[in-house]
Amino acid sequence: MTKMNRQWLLKRRPLGDIKAGDLELVETPIPKPGSGQFLARTVYLSLDPTNRIWMSDMEQYMPPVQIHDVMRGGTLSVVEESNNPGFQKGDIVSGVVGWQEYAVLDGGQKLARNGAPLTAYMSVLGMTGATAYFGLLDIGKPVAGETVVVSAAAGAVGSIVGQIAKLKGCRVVGIAGSDEKCRHVVKDFGFDACINYKKENVAAALKRECPNGIDVDFENAGGTIMEAVMDNLNMKARIVLCGMISGYNAEGPIPGPRNFANILMKRARVEGFIIIDYFPRLHEFYRDMAPWVAEGKIKYDVHVVKGIDQALFALNLLFVGGNTGKLLLQMSEEP
Amino acid sequence: MTKMNRQWLLKRRPLGDIKAGDLELVETPIPKPGSGQFLARTVYLSLDPTNRIWMSDMEQYMPPVQIHDVMRGGTLSVVEESNNPGFQKGDIVSGVVGWQEYAVLDGGQKLARNGAPLTAYMSVLGMTGATAYFGLLDIGKPVAGETVVVSAAAGAVGSIVGQIAKLKGCRVVGIAGSDEKCRHVVKDFGFDACINYKKENVAAALKRECPNGIDVDFENAGGTIMEAVMDNLNMKARIVLCGMISGYNAEGPIPGPRNFANILMKRARVEGFIIIDYFPRLHEFYRDMAPWVAEGKIKYDVHVVKGIDQALFALNLLFVGGNTGKLLLQMSEEP
Repeated sequence: MTKMNRQWLLKRRPLGDIKAGDLELVETPIPKPGSGQFLARTVYLSLDPTNRIWMSDMEQYMPPVQIHDVMRGGTLSVVEESNNPGFQKGDIVSGVVGWQEYAVLDGGQKLARNGAPLTAYMSVLGMTGATAYFGLLDIGKPVAGETVVVSAAAGAVGSIVGQIAKLKGCRVVGIAGSDEKCRHVVKDFGFDACINYKKENVAAALKRECPNGIDVDFENAGGTIMEAVMDNLNMKARIVLCGMISGYNAEGPIPGPRNFANILMKRARVEGFIIIDYFPRLHEFYRDMAPWVAEGKIKYDVHVVKGIDQALFALNLLFVGGNTGKLLLQMSEEP
Repeated sequence: MTKMNRQWLLKRRPLGDIKAGDLELVETPIPKPGSGQFLARTVYLSLDPTNRIWMSDMEQYMPPVQIHDVMRGGTLSVVEESNNPGFQKGDIVSGVVGWQEYAVLDGGQKLARNGAPLTAYMSVLGMTGATAYFGLLDIGKPVAGETVVVSAAAGAVGSIVGQIAKLKGCRVVGIAGSDEKCRHVVKDFGFDACINYKKENVAAALKRECPNGIDVDFENAGGTIMEAVMDNLNMKARIVLCGMISGYNAEGPIPGPRNFANILMKRARVEGFIIIDYFPRLHEFYRDMAPWVAEGKIKYDVHVVKGIDQALFALNLLFVGGNTGKLLLQMSEEP
């Protein structure tokens, strides 16, 4: 029996939560590389909240995935067979191959490993780490002694944001969805405090944990959590709008924060950013982050789910708070 | 019969529209200046949308006016009687004397006139002009060739914002509440276009008038007008949050913009500002604006209502779009 290529195709745009039938797992022949091409076998697929945006036709920062197309996703692949002199069998290539086990490529970004595990390049040394780094430092511009709040604090980006803010001398308060996550964030990532938003009134808890007010909010959650943060802003506060996962599964437009006017009253700055804008500056990130990770100053979690058939189950973990750290789908063995 | 001092006191915080009884006009003896003091007679009182905020106890940028206190307001006064060697009878003093005909002061900002009418110092050469100047240039940072949208375009601040943006080489599209205001804005202030939000679908009209999208929004309106603008933002757009008059009379929290997520998708920046933060930099404003006004490059409207008893009637004009240009209450004759 010939081995086949399994692919997840987007069949229709999900309304609310992703449902059976919105995507379909199909089998197609493994493609053959032509002249100048190579066959890449997917090892890791990055699963991110923004995947849900790409499935929708809401206003977004890239074209949405087209119906019947392979679902988009960031990947780490290994070259299996090559007709391209620049790529040898066994090379590791990072790219956006999507939710499929094999793909034929003309080129790609070869990974220059420096001893870190492959999963690090899909998390702390990849887009996740870069998002935390540029979002916090370039948009949030925290100053030593200021208070930084991070929602989804146990998440892939949030956990790194908090650690960078600590390295910069800030008080760091996380918001997460369980006591266990909160303990992890404080004990292992060194946050000063963490608020369990499922158990506490967030606005009141923020008043307690941020006695000097909030100077920087690294926003991953949106919704009522962001509103609680916006009730406690200092003058000239900055809200780094990285994501608003609480609204991604909504079945229609959701109201903006009821205290939007606080942006005016506090002369605050709210700024959206997407990591792709920082690609020309990634060298700054590697320069700082690689030694931080090597020296153990920045720790990270990776949550690996195995098997392409588990993609939808795995993606849903992001929306129910079921993962801790960077969520990856492993489709095949590391080389 | 002794002449008395009439004062408007805040009696209770308005709920929704300002109603009879929320403020009360009382008569008290004209105070006598003590040693080092002078008696100031109010000539002009500035009426501004933000007055409504000061009457409320919403989160704001200054302490709200206290119940039973004289209502706060920016003023231009003339010295009537002085025991202070720094102030002579006839000197003009700008300050925040509030809604009253007389006040005893210890000091103040003496006006150095350079030939412009007194009303100019309460509008284009005062806080109104400075708000337009710093908001547009320091927060909006328009670049020649970009498109700038201005809501409340026929208003005191908006009309000046648009003219500065034209001087900087931008395409300028106004939003105002009548055909007459729109004609005025285009014909007299030189805007490229103006949308009557009471007659047209603003989002559709913005698409037509801003074929290259919106780079800078100078926001005075808030509410659905701001939402329409936010539907047409360019990448890296800037929203200068100067005011949101549409919500000031609301009877409770109002939802934020339903397309708040566009800030993220368009990597936009929303930034609030209040002119008081720029007091240390007012010299920059005078340096540029005084010659612009003297040379006729910047025009301005002043809408004067006479008599302290007309204060509430006059203030309401702001909320029903009844004024054109800077709204002033004249309490006594110019010296």
